[in-house]
Amino acid sequence: MIIIQQGDLVLTDRILTGDLLIDGDKIVAIDEHISVPEGAEVINAKGCYVFPGFIDPHTHFQMTNALASTADDFDSGTKAAILGGTTSIINFASPEEGSLCKGLEVHKERAAGHCSCDYKFHMELVEMNEDVAREIPQVVEAGVSSFKVYLAYGFRLTDREIYDAIEAIKPTGALVGAHCENGDLIDALVADKRKRGELDVSNHPLTRPAMIESEAIKRFSTIGAALEYPVHIVHVSSKEGIEEVIRERDLGHKVTCETCPQYLVLDESRYNLPDFEGVKYVMSPPLRTIQDQMALKDALVNGLFQTIGSDHCSFTFNDQKLKSRHDFTRIPGGIPGAEERGIVAYDVLVNQCNMSAVDFMKLVSENPAKLYGMYPKKGTLSIGSDGDITIVDKRIEHVLSKESAHTKADYIPYEGISVTGKVRDVILRGHHVVQDGSLLESYLGECIP
Amino acid sequence: MIIIQQGDLVLTDRILTGDLLIDGDKIVAIDEHISVPEGAEVINAKGCYVFPGFIDPHTHFQMTNALASTADDFDSGTKAAILGGTTSIINFASPEEGSLCKGLEVHKERAAGHCSCDYKFHMELVEMNEDVAREIPQVVEAGVSSFKVYLAYGFRLTDREIYDAIEAIKPTGALVGAHCENGDLIDALVADKRKRGELDVSNHPLTRPAMIESEAIKRFSTIGAALEYPVHIVHVSSKEGIEEVIRERDLGHKVTCETCPQYLVLDESRYNLPDFEGVKYVMSPPLRTIQDQMALKDALVNGLFQTIGSDHCSFTFNDQKLKSRHDFTRIPGGIPGAEERGIVAYDVLVNQCNMSAVDFMKLVSENPAKLYGMYPKKGTLSIGSDGDITIVDKRIEHVLSKESAHTKADYIPYEGISVTGKVRDVILRGHHVVQDGSLLESYLGECIP
Amino acid sequence: MIIIQQGDLVLTDRILTGDLLIDGDKIVAIDEHISVPEGAEVINAKGCYVFPGFIDPHTHFQMTNALASTADDFDSGTKAAILGGTTSIINFASPEEGSLCKGLEVHKERAAGHCSCDYKFHMELVEMNEDVAREIPQVVEAGVSSFKVYLAYGFRLTDREIYDAIEAIKPTGALVGAHCENGDLIDALVADKRKRGELDVSNHPLTRPAMIESEAIKRFSTIGAALEYPVHIVHVSSKEGIEEVIRERDLGHKVTCETCPQYLVLDESRYNLPDFEGVKYVMSPPLRTIQDQMALKDALVNGLFQTIGSDHCSFTFNDQKLKSRHDFTRIPGGIPGAEERGIVAYDVLVNQCNMSAVDFMKLVSENPAKLYGMYPKKGTLSIGSDGDITIVDKRIEHVLSKESAHTKADYIPYEGISVTGKVRDVILRGHHVVQDGSLLESYLGECIP
Amino acid sequence: MIIIQQGDLVLTDRILTGDLLIDGDKIVAIDEHISVPEGAEVINAKGCYVFPGFIDPHTHFQMTNALASTADDFDSGTKAAILGGTTSIINFASPEEGSLCKGLEVHKERAAGHCSCDYKFHMELVEMNEDVAREIPQVVEAGVSSFKVYLAYGFRLTDREIYDAIEAIKPTGALVGAHCENGDLIDALVADKRKRGELDVSNHPLTRPAMIESEAIKRFSTIGAALEYPVHIVHVSSKEGIEEVIRERDLGHKVTCETCPQYLVLDESRYNLPDFEGVKYVMSPPLRTIQDQMALKDALVNGLFQTIGSDHCSFTFNDQKLKSRHDFTRIPGGIPGAEERGIVAYDVLVNQCNMSAVDFMKLVSENPAKLYGMYPKKGTLSIGSDGDITIVDKRIEHVLSKESAHTKADYIPYEGISVTGKVRDVILRGHHVVQDGSLLESYLGECIP
Repeated sequence: MIIIQQGDLVLTDRILTGDLLIDGDKIVAIDEHISVPEGAEVINAKGCYVFPGFIDPHTHFQMTNALASTADDFDSGTKAAILGGTTSIINFASPEEGSLCKGLEVHKERAAGHCSCDYKFHMELVEMNEDVAREIPQVVEAGVSSFKVYLAYGFRLTDREIYDAIEAIKPTGALVGAHCENGDLIDALVADKRKRGELDVSNHPLTRPAMIESEAIKRFSTIGAALEYPVHIVHVSSKEGIEEVIRERDLGHKVTCETCPQYLVLDESRYNLPDFEGVKYVMSPPLRTIQDQMALKDALVNGLFQTIGSDHCSFTFNDQKLKSRHDFTRIPGGIPGAEERGIVAYDVLVNQCNMSAVDFMKLVSENPAKLYGMYPKKGTLSIGSDGDITIVDKRIEHVLSKESAHTKADYIPYEGISVTGKVRDVILRGHHVVQDGSLLESYLGECIP
Repeated sequence: MIIIQQGDLVLTDRILTGDLLIDGDKIVAIDEHISVPEGAEVINAKGCYVFPGFIDPHTHFQMTNALASTADDFDSGTKAAILGGTTSIINFASPEEGSLCKGLEVHKERAAGHCSCDYKFHMELVEMNEDVAREIPQVVEAGVSSFKVYLAYGFRLTDREIYDAIEAIKPTGALVGAHCENGDLIDALVADKRKRGELDVSNHPLTRPAMIESEAIKRFSTIGAALEYPVHIVHVSSKEGIEEVIRERDLGHKVTCETCPQYLVLDESRYNLPDFEGVKYVMSPPLRTIQDQMALKDALVNGLFQTIGSDHCSFTFNDQKLKSRHDFTRIPGGIPGAEERGIVAYDVLVNQCNMSAVDFMKLVSENPAKLYGMYPKKGTLSIGSDGDITIVDKRIEHVLSKESAHTKADYIPYEGISVTGKVRDVILRGHHVVQDGSLLESYLGECIP
Repeated sequence: MIIIQQGDLVLTDRILTGDLLIDGDKIVAIDEHISVPEGAEVINAKGCYVFPGFIDPHTHFQMTNALASTADDFDSGTKAAILGGTTSIINFASPEEGSLCKGLEVHKERAAGHCSCDYKFHMELVEMNEDVAREIPQVVEAGVSSFKVYLAYGFRLTDREIYDAIEAIKPTGALVGAHCENGDLIDALVADKRKRGELDVSNHPLTRPAMIESEAIKRFSTIGAALEYPVHIVHVSSKEGIEEVIRERDLGHKVTCETCPQYLVLDESRYNLPDFEGVKYVMSPPLRTIQDQMALKDALVNGLFQTIGSDHCSFTFNDQKLKSRHDFTRIPGGIPGAEERGIVAYDVLVNQCNMSAVDFMKLVSENPAKLYGMYPKKGTLSIGSDGDITIVDKRIEHVLSKESAHTKADYIPYEGISVTGKVRDVILRGHHVVQDGSLLESYLGECIP
Repeated sequence: MIIIQQGDLVLTDRILTGDLLIDGDKIVAIDEHISVPEGAEVINAKGCYVFPGFIDPHTHFQMTNALASTADDFDSGTKAAILGGTTSIINFASPEEGSLCKGLEVHKERAAGHCSCDYKFHMELVEMNEDVAREIPQVVEAGVSSFKVYLAYGFRLTDREIYDAIEAIKPTGALVGAHCENGDLIDALVADKRKRGELDVSNHPLTRPAMIESEAIKRFSTIGAALEYPVHIVHVSSKEGIEEVIRERDLGHKVTCETCPQYLVLDESRYNLPDFEGVKYVMSPPLRTIQDQMALKDALVNGLFQTIGSDHCSFTFNDQKLKSRHDFTRIPGGIPGAEERGIVAYDVLVNQCNMSAVDFMKLVSENPAKLYGMYPKKGTLSIGSDGDITIVDKRIEHVLSKESAHTKADYIPYEGISVTGKVRDVILRGHHVVQDGSLLESYLGECIP
């Protein structure tokens, strides 16, 4: 038994300064004052927010693409996650040999016994055919509650394939998310850059302007609307993208969306850093302008977004990214961020934007739990919910740095950024796994059914 | 020599009640009063608007597609056109055996000696490759000033192909127009209807909802913007489509657009007419709601459109359309309208919407002349311009009917509609070819260089 | 008993081609076929719309202002109304000697025994004080269901007075309407015109630009919102005005609104007519541009307006208006229109804009009945409702003209306008009062309780 | 002579890391490296931004209203200002005995010899008549370049008076600013609160909701537009207010606007603080929601605002504000802020919102100098401009507190807020007046001609 005392408990509708008791792996009591049961571990949370464990709905651990394999596997990735207050991740699984079931199996095997937090999988659809359609209900049966399609990259689906995918998913009720960028246009702009010999990293964002995102958002949303099925847009990065989401909603189309901390605190000037440092920030969509940052914050404060993901997809600066510094098209895209996601978002939203801790909690815990079928097991401080707890000390100011980070990548994109608020303690299903910012015991994360 | 007396001459910036003199094939004088030269034919135009000959930028005469050949060839089509006050058409030419040059040649041959009005060709791009790219400047050299791509139908181009097409066209300065509907989505919705066995004609508009148009408009405009090249949207039919054009312009993207009279006066209730009469109105985009009609009129009055085309593409009701009445997907799409375009638009805009005759003239004469490189030879009452004149008697009210129409199709979509204003006389390059609504002499139209 | 046979009965949710039976003063049966009761008068309504009697929510009969007395008294005004298909009017009553009750009494006396249609009164609030506040519930008790305030003219109320008025009206549930133009600004612009000696009638619209209307709409709506009470805007005339209404609704403020036929078919060019004819069209708000017309039609078709009033306030051209032709500020403002309101609106909306007869009926009958507390006694073809019927023959085309009009003014603003559709028969509470467009019997209208 | 070395000089179009030389009272050289003239004082500005001295366009020093006299006179107010990096203020002057000239004279006398920074006056128009109109050009001649009208408070002008004021000011070219809140509505809402006995400070914002600001913005802008004269809105505080400004600009009306730091970092929850602390934050417009804060930041980043003023109008918490804690309508409204304005705005915009230092500089220096006729004497680091310099050390983090502040009020509204960046040195016309955050010499500010 663990009792957390006098924390600012972030409940679904208010802050309660009080105590919370966990017995076994469940929350069993929440009250202003709870008498300490015999033998219970006592955690003093005075001056701290006590959140339901954060959920990161967007990680790519142990992934291999055409250019490289990610620096982080499930071991290092989930270690970073849990130290950042994230008690559940939803990682992307891809099909194996054309089979969703096999892909899911393989990914489950990779994760099993290697995770420091609980986990679940999205299934990527990188082709669409009858076999895939037949397997969709099977993987849903096996625990997948969300699929992802791409409108960019080599494995993108055509509009018709996306339609067919949504049609196949619709009876299962699972979520359909998309990476929304127009792949054809990116390829064309990249080819143009190549033809001109303009291949240094400053060209990366120029091949993926915001209109390439908003075009794809409209298209994906329209396809969903044709089937009257809600759709989800991951990593919305631009003002144009947000405006497109708003318009689609005005038309009555059901659209939910996610953004990422990198789009809130980093901007496109990073691509012009000296010494090829810009390669660190190659990701898609790319970093945008400060006007886009502001629009994203405004949209978050106004409740337009449902979730915040890390899109953690880490590659090393020196070994993996830098070697393609003279050809941005060869740089593996992605950044680490699973560890920093929670606290960077917290600092931006709660400290800078004065968002209430309750609204912040919805973005990083409650909404993803609901959207991905884990609620109320996860995502809420409620009696009977899993004892997943993240305690953030509001008073501690610290500077983010690779030195204190746990990704296996050799840099973090948030280097040098100062934040106020620190993940002090984390409890995973009743096990006190992080204390004073350090990993206590290697309690194993489980696959969330 | 022909002198037109005391007509309301619709000049580019005002109405001048006065005389206009044509000598040979050119306009040589415009004034309040011109003394009648010896031997000149005198046309009294009191109470009439005297317009520069109308230009129809959108006809499909003598066209064969997968389902049928059009009822109208160049003979009958241009006869209808000139009787409707249209002195120039721009007809669509398609490639032959993969060659644009050959396609242009073939279409010129078909038209030569068969046209009652002047003509010019758009070139359709139904595939995109290096050969096509190489021929683009060649057909521009040969007189083509505009290309058209399709985002729907079997011969639609991918986004990348459209990009490549615009890139190839850009150095020539020619216009790039598009049929904007999302072909993939239409195919998917059609397949769904087929699966359900819902194949009567009332399903046609349901497979092409307005969002399918607005999606494609945004996509096409985005591709143009990626190349910083202006684009043109043909036959915009819906409120959503208009709103998308406005948004794209707000983003700084250069977009011009066309609508058609059928979208102003007919609505989707036509698809539910008894006795399979709905098949007459199968066209793409389909007829819309009265709210869409109103939005189009509002947009026209507010100057959002540049041109009005007929999209004349005629098939017979009894022989061609009706035979597929039990499967709307097999009904050849399109309607006749080259003859009625001018006067229907006139009635709607000038009579009902109180648009000035000057603004109306820009839509049907001046703007298409400018957009398609024929100005000031065509499209204006100016000294030195071609003596192409359309005289509309403002006072005559008449009912549109197949009986008095000249299309070879066996119906007109505007049957029974009453309009006030009638094309009384038409002059083509100084030749008085239509008098009191009847074709006088078979003066031959020429290919406009 | 009267039976109407085989008319297109315009019910609240559909058109029913069938019969309608009136017994005494009430509708007693509606069906596809009703057997003719013995002795019943039979009216054949084939090819006609059968509407619930039109309601004109905006007339100023027998009114005297600082400049003149209206040409029409209750006798002539209601005769015109009933011949135009209007079976109920809501006329404006003004206080007498500072008393609302006395004002109501005086106006009731003026109307009693002089009306050819039923009638009701709005009460104008031209000052606001404790006495007025005390009388508000009293006149509501006496049958007033709506009040009107002015933001222009000498008797306009201040913002505070309007607030106080709404506060006093709120407990009664009565409607609060306003004439929305900024009186201060009009006075200033008029003073400026006077200073410059620019006093011909073409200056009238320049002193009341559309922003003067939209400003007042926002202000009045804001005052209502401060009290969380719905407000009603009469005679909205401009695109800016409409846009303001939309914005206010987007903010959650409850706003209903009216427009008038004159703003749909006449435009500001009228003020520049030769021979001082422009004085006929002096009214406030003034006529606007064709873009405004189009925006109003678009808004009507999209359901933004609730009612269409005539704002009948007639002055003679020769005796009253023309004498001030050299000083537009002295021209009594207003036009006749009670007779033409219904059919002009019908022609614009049903014929030109393809609005359904059902939607049109709501604007001219059902909505005003509901808004002003007369529903379902008035405003609907329902069993038990008053036998108020307006039969419009859809096929008759005719030209509006003073010659055939019944206002005592010596002109109508709609002179020469051709409309298709004619008010053929009118029944008032079971009495067949208009037949074939002529007044049959002088059956007396009653005050609607 | 003073030479500033290796600072990040914030020029009008870029940052130049370099040196700046002042000789006498003017800037005489700006370059990457300037050799140190003999005898010149050397200031090392490494790691610091070197700004043109900040200009505060909105201070109320030594003001008496119906409720109280401000805590700060010109002595203490300008001391606070200069220590906050503000080298010029524009203070409000009010008429005396109905005379603008006399009012200006009196205020000049009060300021003369008491100011630690340069100063200038806005002239308030608290009534409008012919005498005032006559004096307007006279006070412009005497150095006033801006007037202010109020749409709230007892001394508000009517719409007509505002029109007359702008008309009188127009020939002088001076700026017309307004306090935009609807005074009538505030009075009504206050009266309502009084009637209900709801008089504690939490009611203050409820009597001045955002719509009361946006209504007045529209009205004031419309009046300006009627005269085709640009207008300026001071202290815009809400999202609705911003949206109104955007709409007015979309209509082509010329509107500039100001906001204040308090609206960026404080919110309405302050009015609910325990122990009556809310009275500290009584000001008009009141503090708003965090959504409003975010909208203001977004608007600032997107360039919608021209200036940032402090609206410094200080009253003591204990003596002046607290005594009316039981009746919010009696609490003197306003806060101190002249000292903190620059650095709070800097922290929000440059640190949190990633605004460039150049864009920030325009808001606090260049734009107010231009708007109020002091450019390029003030507001720019240019050769020949006044040697007014504000050096901000980017690295110093400090907590704002009354303890270290210089207002005579006994609190600051920004108490406890941590900012990164500190005003280290200030130079006024070549005199080094602030060093390491302390006032060096009492060099006298002058009236700016």
